Amino acid sequence: MNVHPPKIRQPESVTTGPLPGSRKVYLTPGCADMRVPVREILLDPASGEPPLRVYDPSGPYTEAQPPIDLAAGLPQVREAWLVKRDGLETYQGRAVKAEDNGNVTDEALAEPCPARRILRRGREGALVTQLEYARAGIITEEMVYVAHRENLGRETALAGAAERRADGESFGAQIPDFVTPEFVRAEVAAGRAIIPANINHTELEPMIIGRNFLVKINSNIGNSAVTSSVAEEVEKMVWSIRWGADTVMDLSTGRNIHNIRDWILRNAPVPIGTVPIYQALEKVGGDALKLDWEVFKDTLIEQAEQGVDYFTIHAGVRLAYVPLTATRTTGIVSRGGSIMARWCLSKHKESFLYEKFDEICDIMRKYDVSFSLGDGLRPGSIADANDAAQFAELETLGELTKIAWDKGCQVMIEGPGHVPMHKIKENMDKQLRECGEAPFYTLGPLTTDIAPGYDHITSAIGAAMIGWFGTAMLCYVTPKEHLGLPDRDDVKTGVVTYRIAAHAADLAKGHPGARLRDDAMSRARFDFRWQDQFHIGLDPDTAKQFHDETLPKEAHKVAHFCSMCGPKFCSMKITQDLRQEAALLADQGMAEKSAEFLKKGGKLYLET
Amino acid sequence: MNVHPPKIRQPESVTTGPLPGSRKVYLTPGCADMRVPVREILLDPASGEPPLRVYDPSGPYTEAQPPIDLAAGLPQVREAWLVKRDGLETYQGRAVKAEDNGNVTDEALAEPCPARRILRRGREGALVTQLEYARAGIITEEMVYVAHRENLGRETALAGAAERRADGESFGAQIPDFVTPEFVRAEVAAGRAIIPANINHTELEPMIIGRNFLVKINSNIGNSAVTSSVAEEVEKMVWSIRWGADTVMDLSTGRNIHNIRDWILRNAPVPIGTVPIYQALEKVGGDALKLDWEVFKDTLIEQAEQGVDYFTIHAGVRLAYVPLTATRTTGIVSRGGSIMARWCLSKHKESFLYEKFDEICDIMRKYDVSFSLGDGLRPGSIADANDAAQFAELETLGELTKIAWDKGCQVMIEGPGHVPMHKIKENMDKQLRECGEAPFYTLGPLTTDIAPGYDHITSAIGAAMIGWFGTAMLCYVTPKEHLGLPDRDDVKTGVVTYRIAAHAADLAKGHPGARLRDDAMSRARFDFRWQDQFHIGLDPDTAKQFHDETLPKEAHKVAHFCSMCGPKFCSMKITQDLRQEAALLADQGMAEKSAEFLKKGGKLYLET
Repeated sequence: MNVHPPKIRQPESVTTGPLPGSRKVYLTPGCADMRVPVREILLDPASGEPPLRVYDPSGPYTEAQPPIDLAAGLPQVREAWLVKRDGLETYQGRAVKAEDNGNVTDEALAEPCPARRILRRGREGALVTQLEYARAGIITEEMVYVAHRENLGRETALAGAAERRADGESFGAQIPDFVTPEFVRAEVAAGRAIIPANINHTELEPMIIGRNFLVKINSNIGNSAVTSSVAEEVEKMVWSIRWGADTVMDLSTGRNIHNIRDWILRNAPVPIGTVPIYQALEKVGGDALKLDWEVFKDTLIEQAEQGVDYFTIHAGVRLAYVPLTATRTTGIVSRGGSIMARWCLSKHKESFLYEKFDEICDIMRKYDVSFSLGDGLRPGSIADANDAAQFAELETLGELTKIAWDKGCQVMIEGPGHVPMHKIKENMDKQLRECGEAPFYTLGPLTTDIAPGYDHITSAIGAAMIGWFGTAMLCYVTPKEHLGLPDRDDVKTGVVTYRIAAHAADLAKGHPGARLRDDAMSRARFDFRWQDQFHIGLDPDTAKQFHDETLPKEAHKVAHFCSMCGPKFCSMKITQDLRQEAALLADQGMAEKSAEFLKKGGKLYLET
Repeated sequence: MNVHPPKIRQPESVTTGPLPGSRKVYLTPGCADMRVPVREILLDPASGEPPLRVYDPSGPYTEAQPPIDLAAGLPQVREAWLVKRDGLETYQGRAVKAEDNGNVTDEALAEPCPARRILRRGREGALVTQLEYARAGIITEEMVYVAHRENLGRETALAGAAERRADGESFGAQIPDFVTPEFVRAEVAAGRAIIPANINHTELEPMIIGRNFLVKINSNIGNSAVTSSVAEEVEKMVWSIRWGADTVMDLSTGRNIHNIRDWILRNAPVPIGTVPIYQALEKVGGDALKLDWEVFKDTLIEQAEQGVDYFTIHAGVRLAYVPLTATRTTGIVSRGGSIMARWCLSKHKESFLYEKFDEICDIMRKYDVSFSLGDGLRPGSIADANDAAQFAELETLGELTKIAWDKGCQVMIEGPGHVPMHKIKENMDKQLRECGEAPFYTLGPLTTDIAPGYDHITSAIGAAMIGWFGTAMLCYVTPKEHLGLPDRDDVKTGVVTYRIAAHAADLAKGHPGARLRDDAMSRARFDFRWQDQFHIGLDPDTAKQFHDETLPKEAHKVAHFCSMCGPKFCSMKITQDLRQEAALLADQGMAEKSAEFLKKGGKLYLET
């Protein structure tokens, strides 16, 4: 019995409450047991603008009166759906072992999360995964939910949706004007989209990843051997989704890893991804050569039972590819990739992840854990982009995708990394081709190596482009990349930067709803509605703070100018004045004159 | 006589000294009176890496012992060249008028810069501008200088230059392996490049703007009606170029505008651009309707005599185009554009800038002030991108380009603004077509409107892309865009962000020298040379600070890991170890096995 009070108890607090000017709204698409969240940004009533609905991955934390009790976990929004599924059975799970928490004991051991859940697994031959349901022609509650979510609760296609799609360039993506549950089912069935949703993650608000849907972003959290604590990690998840992360990867490698993950999952409304090889390596004392199938398999089951929604599996790092990295400028830069490369080369054996891939599929199918096939040989520099090692692995990932699909598993594919702009399209096209259009999930890519401290920016350039070309989810990069561990501000900067990249991609693809937010912002700008501008933006706090640094007074929030040009030089004000003075435009037939002028080749006013 | 001590004296201090780990080197390409600056980044001697040369616009301020005396101005590096030019004559200039400084008097008047220079102007019919010299087949000192500068002092083409060019995608740009003075001359003669170099800006270190050269960036400085002081403005210029701004635009609109500009020019080693209509408007009390040709002309001469290197002239905002903006979401967002639109529409007259364009050319030619033909109708929102107003103006800018060329003037063309990714290429292509390949100079473009506070990022995405497609110079955007005036940190962030965009563009175009810096960084990463990584990066201070937040000790600067993964999980370390252990790669013929494996379709190790 533990007589010392545990040193690390539960997280002391997480950030709650709505974003400025916003309220959380739940929509009920017919079914009583389904509440789909959207955020409504309330605009100046005098403007006549309706509330602006935006996609909202932040979970109950941003409700006005959030009923958050970390020890109890979030409401189990999926429980009512899962309880009815014939393919699932309840059972007694694997007992937690000391090694799951790094063999820490007594006061160093983080308290387990008290929230208890019914443990389930899928039965052989029954329908378990979203892919299996989709192929059987069955629309799950998760599919209905994400359809509604992607539409932001609209009941029909937006006016002008087809025109906006036609105005975009989607590079072969087939974005619909309106997302029906049947469309979602068909995309999942085709493997073009995944709904990462472990049957043991009942707290999840389902979401979809695929290139015919809104581009999503992931943020990474995690302790490391050097720093961090439990409380920070749970709050990091909450903080990430507050600013717009659609999924969160827990990349923890240190002590208490099992218990921390439990706290995170029981309180996560978004899919949680992990890289199981990290924990497996911890269990064997950090020695890659001691890794084997048994410890890895046990780790998969451990994490699947906890409810992890997707696993990064570096099964494409094959023995024969390792030598291809020998002449690289930066060798192997993926942690998982380097661990497996070392294992393969030292033992001179094929990767057990590759050899046991069938069994991995069988385990992941049972819980509907989605694959995120890891790119262990991704380039770590501009010099190594799109090289033989990277593309050899990508071809293998294509091969594994088909095996996983045959087994009923959902799959996405991880991508680089460091790629100069002119090689991004080639990489995207090859992924679509090799992997049968399974969703691509890329880290950036960084478009230059020369700006440590600014790699959220070097990579946002590549992320926006590859998102446009077809990548379904963008893994964020923070300003600390290559230098250190991101703090709270870095996480926020990374998330907001990647929301920019994802949104720029949606706009360019011609996503029918994307421009509504830009247009609302532009109207607020032209009307000098400063509060509305702050609230419509991705980061209202920073926008307001920047504005207030030069014009702090409340009166300036309605001022028809800003500090950049001052009242005399404000072009927007001049244009507005001009419009008012110039009833000209209508009264004197100026528009017609202008058209006439253009028709005549621009000589009208010179002649008169 | 002024009996009060002037309130605003000279700037109290500017930032001097080399960047960390760097030294300024001057190269002498044969001629005694030419010293071309480059920055050398000194790398760890143990690495065997030679100093890394990078392009350096920072001027004498980054010398180890900079001989800076703001009252005396910088050394007149061009004086010896100009004194020999037959086409130039010295004369008594225009007297400074009270209105030049906003009619401020006594203690409110900023002290004039005491540095005196010989005033020159070009003679009719003689060779004056770089374009005139180039067309006459004459290579000026400025052309020799920029050739050397673009080559970073290399005497011959880099090894592998042709391969790197072939590896890139330049969209029709013809980047040479090695820049000769004759190549520079030919590009200037063709109008594809400009060397903005007012004959009265003798302190200038010449540089070139054109799509067959390195992509350049501009930063804006300037006071405004609301805030700022003289000292801040001069330091802002020095601060901007320290971080890599290639040109600086002084957009001041307030009081003391003439005297502040004099301080800036006498101390500026980079081209200075202005928007003369701003000062003209000040002179008429801020009332656009009081503007006329006389006050504008007088302002052009005033600023040309001071040495301004390029003028933004919004001569493309024609009366007939104004109504095209009536249905826009954000109307006219260019200050100059809105001023001229108001003037045209209120008077119902064609723009005097358009009507007097010939005379404007005659004035600018006399001093070799380059045109930056302003895009007064650029879009201010995603909604307005690539619309009829914008493109009508662009066509007129093409027409004006040809007139200016006929007059012997150098020309570049300003571009947007706000453009979603899928419309950037169309904009670039139209500019090249309409404007006869005159250099394009764009503000971003911002690829979404929804992120006030982060518009350096929304726009870096567009800037990198349009730079890749052919834009020659990128005007920076700071985090304060749309919200307030940038402070020192914002200016630095904006400049570094745009250096990233420009460099990403150079890489993608296949610029033969661009990748050297990325490769040097990547080698430093793989070798765990932390100090070298900081120094090679665009912002050594921030990189070091970020690193030190988690691993502050000096010993960690040589540690073979970082705080991100810790020692156990460091992929680079694992790869390095792996390379060492695995003499395998050579000894056991692994590379051959791997090749064989790939040839057989990847079955080798499964079979054995």
